[in-house]
This record gives sequence, C-alpha cells and structure tokens, in this order.
Amino acid sequence: MKKIILDLDTGIDDTLAISYILGSPEVELIGITSTYGNVLLDQGIRNDLAVTDLLGHPEVPVYRGEPHSLETDSFAVSDISAFIHGKNGIGDVDIPDSPRKVENDMNAVDFIIASVKKYGKDLTFVPTGPETNIAKALQKAPEIKDEIGNIVIMGGALTVCGNVSPWAEANISQDPEACDILFRSGAPVTMVGLDVTLQTLMTYKDSEQWRRIGTPAAKFLADMVDFYIKAYETTSPHLGGCGLHDPLAAAVAVDPTLITTLPINMQVDTEEPTRGRTIGDNARLNDPAKTVKVAVGVDKERFLNEFMTRIGNVAAAAK
Amino acid sequence: MKKIILDLDTGIDDTLAISYILGSPEVELIGITSTYGNVLLDQGIRNDLAVTDLLGHPEVPVYRGEPHSLETDSFAVSDISAFIHGKNGIGDVDIPDSPRKVENDMNAVDFIIASVKKYGKDLTFVPTGPETNIAKALQKAPEIKDEIGNIVIMGGALTVCGNVSPWAEANISQDPEACDILFRSGAPVTMVGLDVTLQTLMTYKDSEQWRRIGTPAAKFLADMVDFYIKAYETTSPHLGGCGLHDPLAAAVAVDPTLITTLPINMQVDTEEPTRGRTIGDNARLNDPAKTVKVAVGVDKERFLNEFMTRIGNVAAAAK
Repeated sequence: MKKIILDLDTGIDDTLAISYILGSPEVELIGITSTYGNVLLDQGIRNDLAVTDLLGHPEVPVYRGEPHSLETDSFAVSDISAFIHGKNGIGDVDIPDSPRKVENDMNAVDFIIASVKKYGKDLTFVPTGPETNIAKALQKAPEIKDEIGNIVIMGGALTVCGNVSPWAEANISQDPEACDILFRSGAPVTMVGLDVTLQTLMTYKDSEQWRRIGTPAAKFLADMVDFYIKAYETTSPHLGGCGLHDPLAAAVAVDPTLITTLPINMQVDTEEPTRGRTIGDNARLNDPAKTVKVAVGVDKERFLNEFMTRIGNVAAAAK
Repeated sequence: MKKIILDLDTGIDDTLAISYILGSPEVELIGITSTYGNVLLDQGIRNDLAVTDLLGHPEVPVYRGEPHSLETDSFAVSDISAFIHGKNGIGDVDIPDSPRKVENDMNAVDFIIASVKKYGKDLTFVPTGPETNIAKALQKAPEIKDEIGNIVIMGGALTVCGNVSPWAEANISQDPEACDILFRSGAPVTMVGLDVTLQTLMTYKDSEQWRRIGTPAAKFLADMVDFYIKAYETTSPHLGGCGLHDPLAAAVAVDPTLITTLPINMQVDTEEPTRGRTIGDNARLNDPAKTVKVAVGVDKERFLNEFMTRIGNVAAAAK
C-alpha cells in the first residue's frame, strides 16, 4: 500500500489535504511533518493534532519541522495569510485541542529520512507549504533522492502568474532556496502549482453538502471552507470560488492520472526582481532526463467528484 | 493550397525561415511583410529582396512594415542583435542587392488585411520579429481575427527563461504592447517560443552539408549560419549549436504536427519589472475557449530532417 507523508503549514486547504488522504482507503497516512507558512510552526502542529483527532484519526503522528526558511532565522505570518486562513489557520473556527503532543523521539527531517529508508519507492512525500523540511532532508541524506517514490508539491506557477507577486507563488516565496535545492536534487518531483489549482474551485453550494452530513467534523469543514471562500471573494473575485490548492496535490499523490504533466528540469529564481519564480532551467533544457513533472492540465470534474466524496466519507465516519 | 505571409526582421534565422518556406512545395509564399528588430526596417527590406533573388524566387513581393514599436517613435538595433546577426543582418556575408524594390501600392498592414479578405482560413501569417504589423492590422480591421487561418509567431518564453532578460524573449521585448494586443484579440495564435526553439539546434556539421551543395545560395546559407553558430558559442556556450528559432515557426506553419501544444489564454506583461514576459492570463484561465496554443514540445529529429532537406533543396535549385 502506498504510504503518504503530508508536510503541512495547516492552513485551511492543508486541512482539506489531510481530510482527502484520510478519506482515501488505498493509501496510508504514516505521519504529518509540520512546517511554517500559512501559520507559525506551533500553530500548525496544534492544528494537525486537533484536526486528525476531530476526523477520528488520532493514530496519525505529527513531527516537528523547521520553524523558518533556510536563509532566515525567524518567521512571521503575513497579513494576507492571516486574512485568507484566519488567525488560527483554520478559518477562526473553534475546535478542541488534542490531548496528544507532537512526537518527541524524532524531528520532521529525521522522520522523512527514516521513512524513505523504510518504505523506499512506496513512499510519496507531499509538501503543501515551503520545501524547507525536504531540502534539509536532502542535504542530510542526499541518497534519498534515488530511493523515494515521489515528491508531490503544492507550489509554484509555471504557465500562469503568481499569487504573492506576478511571478511568485506563496509557498515557494517562503523559501525559494529550499525549493531550488529540491528541483536541482535529482529527486522525482511532481509540481502541482497555480497552473492547475486555480482551475479546481469549490463554492458555497459544495460546502453546504458537507454541512448536511451533520457530524461535528462535517460542520467544522463546512464552516472553515466558507471562511476561505469569503476571503477569495475579496482576493480573487473573478474566480467564483476558492482554489483547492493543497487537496489537489494530495489527490495527485493518491492518483497521478488526475493531471497531465510537462516533464521539464526546473529551477527557482533566487535573485531579485523575480525571486520566488518557478521556471524551466535553460541550462538543463536539453538533458534527456527530466526530474520534474509540472501539472499543466487537470481533470476538474473527476477531481471535484473525488474531493467531495472522499472528504464527505471521512467527515461522515468521524464520531 | 495554404498561403503563407512571412513577417520578418531579416536576420539570419529569418533568412532560414524564407528558405524553409521556399523549400516547401505544399505551401505558397504570397509575400513578405518587413519589420524591425534584428535589423532596421530598411536593412530588412534590402535583405528580403536580396535573399529571395539569390534563392531563385524574385516573384515574392516584399511590403514595407512599421519601422518601430507602437509606443515609441524610433528604433535602434541593440548591440547584441548586431553581434548575433552581423551588421548587415545576414552574418556580414556579401550578397548582391536586388534590382527590385519594395512594393509601393500597399504597405504591410494593408497587405495583411487584404490577404485575409482574399484567402481567409487558407492564410497563415508568420511573424518572426515583433508583432507590430499584425497588431496594427488587428486595430485597423478587428474582424480579421475571426477570418484568418492561423498566426504562428516565433517569440516568447512560457516555461523557460528569456534571452534578453531572465523573463523576456527578444521579439516580444521589442513591442510588448503589440504582442499583448495579439494575444487578447481572440485571433488564433500558435506561439513557438524559446521553450522549443532552444531544443532545435544546428551545428557546423549541418552547415557543411549545405556548403557541399556548391551553389552560391548554398554557400551563402552555410557562411551565414557559421557566423550565427560562432555567435552562439559566446552567448550560449552550453547549447552546442545555434537555436533554430524562426525556421521552426515557419515549419510549424507548414506542418503543425511537429509540435505539441498547451492551449492557454496568454498575456504579455507590459509593466516593470517583468515587462516583455509572456505568461498565462489568470483572469481568463477558466475560460473554456483558449485562443493561444503554446508549443511545449517538438519532434526535434523530424524537424531537423525536414529543415536540412527542404533548405538543401531550395539552395540546390537556385541558379
């Protein structure tokens, strides 16, 4: 069975990614590694524990990741992140704290490395925030690039404009160096960026379906998503819904046939003025081996059906 | 029979585009519209007339286009263009002036419009310099967007870095507003950009094949291309040859199956700092109708075979 590690800055759509994976019986969520971005690291850990509890899966361990990017020594949440995800990261909806704690025998980087050693090609790693944890893991144990099954990132924008600037997507902009290390490492990467995630939209009509399920988990998800859709009405009024960024990456980790991809060797611009841009590396354009597959098309209908069904199932099953 | 208009800033690879079309018996080159870019407008006109004569096709009319971009009132050739194409635009190789003159009954913009009216869907327009002429034609006769067969541009860079800056390709950078008008016009466009043209390379071994043909035309093409390859050794030493930009667009105009494309509604950034960047328009990402097809893959072997054969044929047939 395919093993999944979610690497999250939890976050509304990170919560939807957790829900999607827990609603996918064909894969096993062996752990969550926490990162910073939509929220501070500790808030993310709190949310990971509370959300997995509420969804009826307290068996999922949560590991402490890096609290800031490779080239900084601190991190603060941006105003726009707080506006989109709420101050607590989950749409300012109140859910109980978990009685559990973050794992204390291993940090996120060591858990990633140990999991690659244990599961090899059966492991898919899914970072939906900055790539700091996986970059650190690749620096500490470079051989894992050849041993891991796949790395499916939510991040970047190749054929469309960014969302924190005309050229940069939010996750990549948090730690351009980390993603550049990942792209140049030789590890297999599937990039699920704004190219496709802005094509997969959720509306109030969809969240209302979940609300009718009636469990506390379903009500939580519906309330949280409504906060997100409302924020999108301000930030991206032309879209007519909210982008399903992180859950699309999770869905692709489960079933890669949901997207069509362009194989290309990628880089991240680390210099101004286009710092944070994800783009093909011209120096490796004619290398026969391509290590990154960039999603450029998505089967929207099939994904949205799977998304509503799988998350509905896990929300209905949660006590 | 498919009718072709080449819109050229002639230029070494523009000369190869002329040669490719003249070597393609399944299409008819009904005219060349001249533009500025690699050279000044008048030098381009001189080259168009001289090259078609040397290749044995003095029947091809040449029309005077716009001498500068929409938002400027003059144009100067950049140092890098002169370095790559030579001071005379054709690798500083001497060929005789043509006894012919530019057409004086119509300018390029009116010839484009009249040709669309005459040939409709049978007409393919191929700009391999800035899009100033076609933008002016679309402004003067907007209805041609629905009447023309196709517009195959050499220009832009969607999935790779630019060549005049990390984000801008040379042709688009000459007149970003013009290409933005084209992209937003609704006219059918196939964008053949650096994404694919940097994958189709020519080497000294290839030019030597032409030289052995022995005609003045073949010797001219070989000498001219050797100048171009030598410039690439300085500007792009990692490539191992010269990029076949304009002739690939010409080849795609003849046979669109040479490339794989991504359908996407495009824009050109006209603001700094990324002025001249070609990128998907997020506001039209979810429009079901896509008016631009961006080449993201190319059948290199088949193109290079066609390229060597067709240009070899026309060079051999020229007196």
